[in-house]
Amino acid sequence: MDYKNIVFNKPYLTGKENHYIYDAVNNKGQLSGNGFYTNKCQEFLKDKYGFENCLLTTSCTDALEMVAILLRIQPGDEVIMPSYTFVSTANAFILRGAKIVFCDSRKDYPAIDEKSIKSLITDKTKAIVVVHYAGLACDMDYIMDIAEENKLFVVEDAAQAIDSYFESSNGEKKPLGSIGHLSTFSFHETKNIISGEGGALVINDSSFFQRAEIIWEKGTNRSSFFRGEVDKYGWVDFGSSFLPAELVSAFLYAQLENIDIIQNKRKEIWTRYFNGLKALEEKGCLELPKTPSYGCNNGHMFYLVCENIEQRTGLLKFLSDKKIKAVFHYQSLHKSEFFKDKYEGEELENSDRYSNCLVRLPMFFELENESIDRIIDVIKEYYTL
Amino acid sequence: MDYKNIVFNKPYLTGKENHYIYDAVNNKGQLSGNGFYTNKCQEFLKDKYGFENCLLTTSCTDALEMVAILLRIQPGDEVIMPSYTFVSTANAFILRGAKIVFCDSRKDYPAIDEKSIKSLITDKTKAIVVVHYAGLACDMDYIMDIAEENKLFVVEDAAQAIDSYFESSNGEKKPLGSIGHLSTFSFHETKNIISGEGGALVINDSSFFQRAEIIWEKGTNRSSFFRGEVDKYGWVDFGSSFLPAELVSAFLYAQLENIDIIQNKRKEIWTRYFNGLKALEEKGCLELPKTPSYGCNNGHMFYLVCENIEQRTGLLKFLSDKKIKAVFHYQSLHKSEFFKDKYEGEELENSDRYSNCLVRLPMFFELENESIDRIIDVIKEYYTL
Repeated sequence: MDYKNIVFNKPYLTGKENHYIYDAVNNKGQLSGNGFYTNKCQEFLKDKYGFENCLLTTSCTDALEMVAILLRIQPGDEVIMPSYTFVSTANAFILRGAKIVFCDSRKDYPAIDEKSIKSLITDKTKAIVVVHYAGLACDMDYIMDIAEENKLFVVEDAAQAIDSYFESSNGEKKPLGSIGHLSTFSFHETKNIISGEGGALVINDSSFFQRAEIIWEKGTNRSSFFRGEVDKYGWVDFGSSFLPAELVSAFLYAQLENIDIIQNKRKEIWTRYFNGLKALEEKGCLELPKTPSYGCNNGHMFYLVCENIEQRTGLLKFLSDKKIKAVFHYQSLHKSEFFKDKYEGEELENSDRYSNCLVRLPMFFELENESIDRIIDVIKEYYTL
Repeated sequence: MDYKNIVFNKPYLTGKENHYIYDAVNNKGQLSGNGFYTNKCQEFLKDKYGFENCLLTTSCTDALEMVAILLRIQPGDEVIMPSYTFVSTANAFILRGAKIVFCDSRKDYPAIDEKSIKSLITDKTKAIVVVHYAGLACDMDYIMDIAEENKLFVVEDAAQAIDSYFESSNGEKKPLGSIGHLSTFSFHETKNIISGEGGALVINDSSFFQRAEIIWEKGTNRSSFFRGEVDKYGWVDFGSSFLPAELVSAFLYAQLENIDIIQNKRKEIWTRYFNGLKALEEKGCLELPKTPSYGCNNGHMFYLVCENIEQRTGLLKFLSDKKIKAVFHYQSLHKSEFFKDKYEGEELENSDRYSNCLVRLPMFFELENESIDRIIDVIKEYYTL
């Protein structure tokens, strides 16, 4: 039978990207960062999600590096984070000299296991970095409480978590990224809202506002200068060039404007997968994503967890043979070539299980129902072999 | 009299930018970094300037940060560089813990005073960073010799120096950026060749190739993986996300394709300024740029040096009153708010003189002869007051 190829990801274009890029390039007269569209995007994100402050960056990695500088991470400081995450979560802090203390994931979904955090805290711990994997909220009430008790900063790596929420025990619904002291988002082409490469730093603790702007602008007080607050600008702190070019922000704005349409469609796809594969979970063949009671699904990723690595290898090959591109994801960072000799902690059972058993299915705006149904059928076929 | 406003800089568009961006976005199917246009730009730069290897970055700042990581700069290492430079030259190394040792500029033009370098070398010195200010070559024969004698790395901060050359004492003409072990370029909107924000790392010492690619790709061996050299990729080193989005590279490619046209035009403007202002220099009113015998002018910037700060303040105001936007430039980094308490060296007389006395005149592709002539006339008028 002649199957149609189903790719894993296809960047979605709203149709306005070229228009705004053209406007940025040909009309607005500023191509470098911190211009018209950068501001539009920042204001959009603040308005829609109630973020206190927000600065676009060239990547989520760069936003994390800004965090590490803002928190004044020094050699010897310890930072707790899940091992099941992207390398940048760790690299950003390692570049400042931090010792990374890796924590396990939850058994029921890949978020940091909040109950394991306490035992990892020492008098050198400076921050807890949580990752809202697949846009599924970590238990932020619990985590913020631990942090407050121990005077630690909380950073939300919300790379995958745009337009997702946490419901606090008092019933308050908070957007992910608005809870920790600092948060980071990604607009990489594999995300819901994209600009090819791109990211944002969200600053919820106002004591970081001024310095964040300085670090963003290469360690200078250029922003104050343009607001007329100082009469010339100069070198006042560490910093880097974290600003995206205006054409990147122009592209991003076309996406943000259409966020509700994008999100609705992605959540429909997610739900179709979920309903179609439920029977397999009920039979005990595999695990589907668990949306925690305090969280919601933001249609970022549809994953499933196989029983073991052999089953996963078999499933990926079976899908590939039918021209369906499904992929695994992170490998536990504490077992990486770079870190394995430095790791002194315990076994991280769940992190390793997701490393070995998790599969991501194709997930993009233009994925047709027909394709989703075929993917579901092929997975069902695999489990009846 | 009603003067036309003359801005300081106006980004030039070749006309193909939107076309290539459209192609990257709508046809090529990859928006993240390290795609079709990134590769096109890198190949273009290698072919045209004989660079051994080249990686596009999100900014020249980021390219400098890659350099600092590649050189394995550690706390306590010393790096020699001019004080008359942009903050990023220093920040990139400070972020890795380096002690910056600032050097004076030459008396005749703002390049590092190569004769002052030797006395600044200690057993902790790791690298010499030279800045080809205004695209005017530093004395690279002399500097490479000192470096070799002392086993130091040489980094060319060639942010302003695309398409400029150094003529070696043996008569060999080498593009700036091809001489040091590592070099960096900027494509910020104020440069000759632009992408809004953007930069490139040039790697002339092949021992850095493999690690550069890893650092560029967030500390992973993803590039090796895509070439089929390893069967999965993972975390193997430090790193960050240094890659520009494909739309940035697509924009840049439209510029690079037209580099000869851009360069010819800019050099014409430069020459018109130079000829028009020569008489004032001969009268001793001001200094014009000095192109060293081993260098050439790449049309990046037209600057002049006033006798003192009062004369400069007066000139800038006089130009501004006639709606001409001329600007000063760097302030000596060793005297900045951030560094002044850390500086232990001698007075840097020339660096301070350029900080106080240098003026940059409007310089961009579309600057008309009529405007140039008016600027020249206004400057002449100022000096006859």
